[in-house]
Amino acid sequence: MTVKNAFYAQSGGVTAVINASACGVIETARQHSDKIGTVYAGQNGIIGALLENLIDTSKISDADVAALRHTPSGAFGSCRYKMKSLEKNKREYDRLIEVFKAHNIGYFFYNGGGDSADTCLKVSQLADAMGFPIQAIHVPKTVDNDLPVTDNCPGFGSVAKYIAVSTREASYDVASMCATSTKIFVLEVMGRHAGWIAAAGGLAADASNDIPVVILFPEVEFNQEKFLATVDAKVKQYGYCSIVVSEGCHYPDGTFLAEQGTRDSFGHAQLGGAAPVVANMIKDALGYKFHWAVADYLQRAARHLSSKSDVEQAYALGKAAVELALEGKNSVMPAVIRTSNNPYTWHIGSGELKDIANVEKMMPLEYISEDGYGITDACREYLQPLIEGEDYPPYENGMPKYVTLKHELLDKKLPAFEL
Amino acid sequence: MTVKNAFYAQSGGVTAVINASACGVIETARQHSDKIGTVYAGQNGIIGALLENLIDTSKISDADVAALRHTPSGAFGSCRYKMKSLEKNKREYDRLIEVFKAHNIGYFFYNGGGDSADTCLKVSQLADAMGFPIQAIHVPKTVDNDLPVTDNCPGFGSVAKYIAVSTREASYDVASMCATSTKIFVLEVMGRHAGWIAAAGGLAADASNDIPVVILFPEVEFNQEKFLATVDAKVKQYGYCSIVVSEGCHYPDGTFLAEQGTRDSFGHAQLGGAAPVVANMIKDALGYKFHWAVADYLQRAARHLSSKSDVEQAYALGKAAVELALEGKNSVMPAVIRTSNNPYTWHIGSGELKDIANVEKMMPLEYISEDGYGITDACREYLQPLIEGEDYPPYENGMPKYVTLKHELLDKKLPAFEL
Repeated sequence: MTVKNAFYAQSGGVTAVINASACGVIETARQHSDKIGTVYAGQNGIIGALLENLIDTSKISDADVAALRHTPSGAFGSCRYKMKSLEKNKREYDRLIEVFKAHNIGYFFYNGGGDSADTCLKVSQLADAMGFPIQAIHVPKTVDNDLPVTDNCPGFGSVAKYIAVSTREASYDVASMCATSTKIFVLEVMGRHAGWIAAAGGLAADASNDIPVVILFPEVEFNQEKFLATVDAKVKQYGYCSIVVSEGCHYPDGTFLAEQGTRDSFGHAQLGGAAPVVANMIKDALGYKFHWAVADYLQRAARHLSSKSDVEQAYALGKAAVELALEGKNSVMPAVIRTSNNPYTWHIGSGELKDIANVEKMMPLEYISEDGYGITDACREYLQPLIEGEDYPPYENGMPKYVTLKHELLDKKLPAFEL
Repeated sequence: MTVKNAFYAQSGGVTAVINASACGVIETARQHSDKIGTVYAGQNGIIGALLENLIDTSKISDADVAALRHTPSGAFGSCRYKMKSLEKNKREYDRLIEVFKAHNIGYFFYNGGGDSADTCLKVSQLADAMGFPIQAIHVPKTVDNDLPVTDNCPGFGSVAKYIAVSTREASYDVASMCATSTKIFVLEVMGRHAGWIAAAGGLAADASNDIPVVILFPEVEFNQEKFLATVDAKVKQYGYCSIVVSEGCHYPDGTFLAEQGTRDSFGHAQLGGAAPVVANMIKDALGYKFHWAVADYLQRAARHLSSKSDVEQAYALGKAAVELALEGKNSVMPAVIRTSNNPYTWHIGSGELKDIANVEKMMPLEYISEDGYGITDACREYLQPLIEGEDYPPYENGMPKYVTLKHELLDKKLPAFEL
């Protein structure tokens, strides 16, 4: 009997460390070539499987695979494509089985967040539902940090570090200028449903850095009057105030701050994000000069500032996924299990996909301070280890040296498929 | 005769490395305590001199002075305050002389950009105009990179590195997603008058990184039709396109892209910057999904990503300012003189303030590619050495360890002064 090959794909929004998980999967599979044949990566996620666009990773040099560990983005291409249920779209699952059969694929590694865990769960059920033997293992990844079971999600720690550092640096800047110029700095961060990333802004301040940071969480309904009073008090005390606003911050009726009904001269809907809205609101009410920034993709792509903890865990989870497969597991996800905050200790455990798919881990409300604008000690204890350590990429000519993979596709064996 | 003391102040928008110049000034002055007494720093720039708010830097430990080298922002406070001419506001110059006399100040080090060079020039003329003996030396600093004589201005190299790295990282991200999702990424950068910072976005691409970057310079009048066609061609070729837009990008009639006549529901003027305008323009015309970011203060405060070249030059210029003073010079500015591009070699020279104040160095038009959307090889040769090398700050608990100085003010000897 020939050894089975593996399929690996990246799904959803990419991160600074998802390729470190890919590195862990491929390097570990290479160490077990007696049990796992070739790893075929889906080009652009699951779409690569459906279209039979399979990247032959055996053609990638060991050096390039190693370089994935320090390369942000999704080196094989990712996708936003949610597969429907088996009942609603049997045609796609039949196609997956055809492709897997054609290429002798017995292992399915899917690297993504909550939606992807659901896809992975469905694939894991193909054995029972359709008689096709496959082991499906989910590799966690999401800057949203909202997967259950695992202590945290790879990608999040590096975003948290980026937001914490950027907030500290910009606050130092504003503190210098506030006597005669800018007194307000607003930074907009990702996180439509949960305030994990916004919370990281709170790490800008600590015992040695007395920085006034006001955080606007999606978990806390926006109260303009109370917010303005809080900011004004900070400016009166410190001379300035830094504000970290989640893109998901909203009014009690659910309207996002960013949706201000703004129209341009052609009548088009508003263009901006929450940051300029908050900044202008302060200017109108309190008269303070402001600056604002929107980090957007910069925060999740910033491999130059990744946390070492995050990179190590991303790699370890990719490695563990292969090891779980070798143990014969199906329908599971390796997970980080925290055993102590300080010093931070953790090991790799695992959870069942049925307990993970479609379950969103929200930020505990006890992580938000009583006034609704800061983080508690419990939150700090949770977050701090995740930004610990630096893991700089190599540089050449002043620039980080990331790897771009040639996508060498396998010869197709099947007729074309329409998505 | 007692040795004279020195006054040092930071002026205008702060940078990631202006404190490295402060470090150079203070450390060098300490090495020459036989000729220079105490360095008094103005709290919040020249305002500190006018209000007699002088920080006694002799109270700062050697370790804290050394830490200034890796701390962004202006540790003594900066200001936006332009002194009028001697004829128009003799009262302020009289006050400066009073303060300098009261504290036995014979050296004036002013760390800033073009406006500050003008103030420094005026102070340097106090000797002749008002019979007060002072040596005024300007220490260059500005992310705008628009001072003449010097090869570049401290602060710029680090912003350039930040923008080049961020553009590369975000481009990797978009390249991963473009098959099914975001195809356009727009990054807005500083530079109202000159495209130096925007040009740095062009460094994201090189021989090993074939990235489609379209730059919107303030030097090139915006042509919507041509721009959209350029972006569309890049998306058709690469699957995505990254756009770096200068805040100073404008239409032929001088209207900035950011001024779209946008009104919110209360009729207030538009909130956003140029990036969302460009992104929405592409969406409306071409239908591509977009993301956009505004770097704002993050770019000039990002000490975590400073270029080593920039830090070294900032320090060397602070040191050289003190050495020029010791040589008896007045009304000069130390400057970086480039002697070779590759390898990059430079030494410190100097220029006369009369040739520097109120002279703005624009970006040469031969640095912009023929189509108006990229940088030429000449530009790359100029920029590349300025982002060379990394100079990481120390970290503690996952965060950069920056120094915050206590502002210990000298006892005042003079009556209060109204600005």
